[in-house]
Amino acid sequence: MSTVKAIIFDTFGTVVDWRTSLIDDLTAFGTARGITADWVGLVDAWRANYAPSMDRVRKGEQPWTKLDDLHRTTLDQLVVQFGVTGLSEADLDHLNRGWHRLKPWPDAVPGLTRLKAKYIIAPMSNGNVSLLLNMAKNAGIPWDMICAAELFRHYKPDPETYLGAASLLGLAPSEVMMAAAHNGDLAAARTCGLKTAFFPRPSEYGPHQKRDFAADQAWDVVAADIEDLAARMGC
Amino acid sequence: MSTVKAIIFDTFGTVVDWRTSLIDDLTAFGTARGITADWVGLVDAWRANYAPSMDRVRKGEQPWTKLDDLHRTTLDQLVVQFGVTGLSEADLDHLNRGWHRLKPWPDAVPGLTRLKAKYIIAPMSNGNVSLLLNMAKNAGIPWDMICAAELFRHYKPDPETYLGAASLLGLAPSEVMMAAAHNGDLAAARTCGLKTAFFPRPSEYGPHQKRDFAADQAWDVVAADIEDLAARMGC
Repeated sequence: MSTVKAIIFDTFGTVVDWRTSLIDDLTAFGTARGITADWVGLVDAWRANYAPSMDRVRKGEQPWTKLDDLHRTTLDQLVVQFGVTGLSEADLDHLNRGWHRLKPWPDAVPGLTRLKAKYIIAPMSNGNVSLLLNMAKNAGIPWDMICAAELFRHYKPDPETYLGAASLLGLAPSEVMMAAAHNGDLAAARTCGLKTAFFPRPSEYGPHQKRDFAADQAWDVVAADIEDLAARMGC
Repeated sequence: MSTVKAIIFDTFGTVVDWRTSLIDDLTAFGTARGITADWVGLVDAWRANYAPSMDRVRKGEQPWTKLDDLHRTTLDQLVVQFGVTGLSEADLDHLNRGWHRLKPWPDAVPGLTRLKAKYIIAPMSNGNVSLLLNMAKNAGIPWDMICAAELFRHYKPDPETYLGAASLLGLAPSEVMMAAAHNGDLAAARTCGLKTAFFPRPSEYGPHQKRDFAADQAWDVVAADIEDLAARMGC
């Protein structure tokens, strides 16, 4: 691992707890506005549309569209499906920006702060730059750079994302480690020649979690969380 | 100025003192290696080739080439011109990476740290991402994001750079302020609808400085340096 100079992180689920954050955010909005709805169901349905919406772009069925806009298209459908009425354009924009306000897992900021002293740290996320940047400003995540699918106009797991990040950082793929709580993300990064680090987030999907409870390949590092990753990487 | 949400900075000359840094860097290399040369003259000639080399890309005479590679092409010519011999490939790479080791002006890191508490701060530089990132890591510059010509495959003052930065930040041009010690950079940014901030760096070019001693338009903010900019922007 002594050749690793940068560690890039999946973000949704790996660094931030999107499900609890969004349920809290939408529930608080509903309470403040007197709107009763199945916010938990809406959040789970929103995330369930994440991969299919990106796949339409990845397969060329839709031109490049950043994640904020994919999220918004899905949200517009879901408020109808869940019978949420009376929302203004500003309300919908506010709810959509809930993804900019996601909260980190408790170990994320302390672990990243330790890693930053020795490594370049950046997200490598399907979120767009402003989503990731606003999230970082809001939550105090100390990224050195924001690597985002938007910069490459490709969504993970397309190789253009992992290799594009290494190129921007001026590093060989083998000098970059991909860290994720998702085995599939790491498998794609490994195919591109990146080092890999896994740690589980077993409550990411709440009661609906079906996979990624443990490493399913011999990743270069398997840790308990980001603080443990920092310890294993000598920080 | 209350609409400004992000401040993007020219970097060479505005945030870092490229001339003194490179002269010191190359002189130290020469001393350590017992190589006598006109390092001051070489540095000034290197920078004199900066705009012409980018202009070849801007005019389409050369395909997109990142600044590290433009710098290296010029360096390879200058070591011949200045009669510097005995340099290995590793030596040339080390000298070229002198641009990654530039030192900030004394007010830069304190001023940027103050501004970061209230605004998104990023470079908007013709340097490539890894150059700017390594510089920031080395010097402790607390950027939130690295905006670089490389991301847009256009060099300043092409409008794609200023407008591309605003787009990545998820902001309207009028919500972004360009800060620079160069009137020409600000004129181009203003044409794109950005707010503008000027402060002079009268020793940037040493004895060869011919312009930019003062604001030559009524920029939105005219400050003494980055600490003064922070004060004027309410930080």
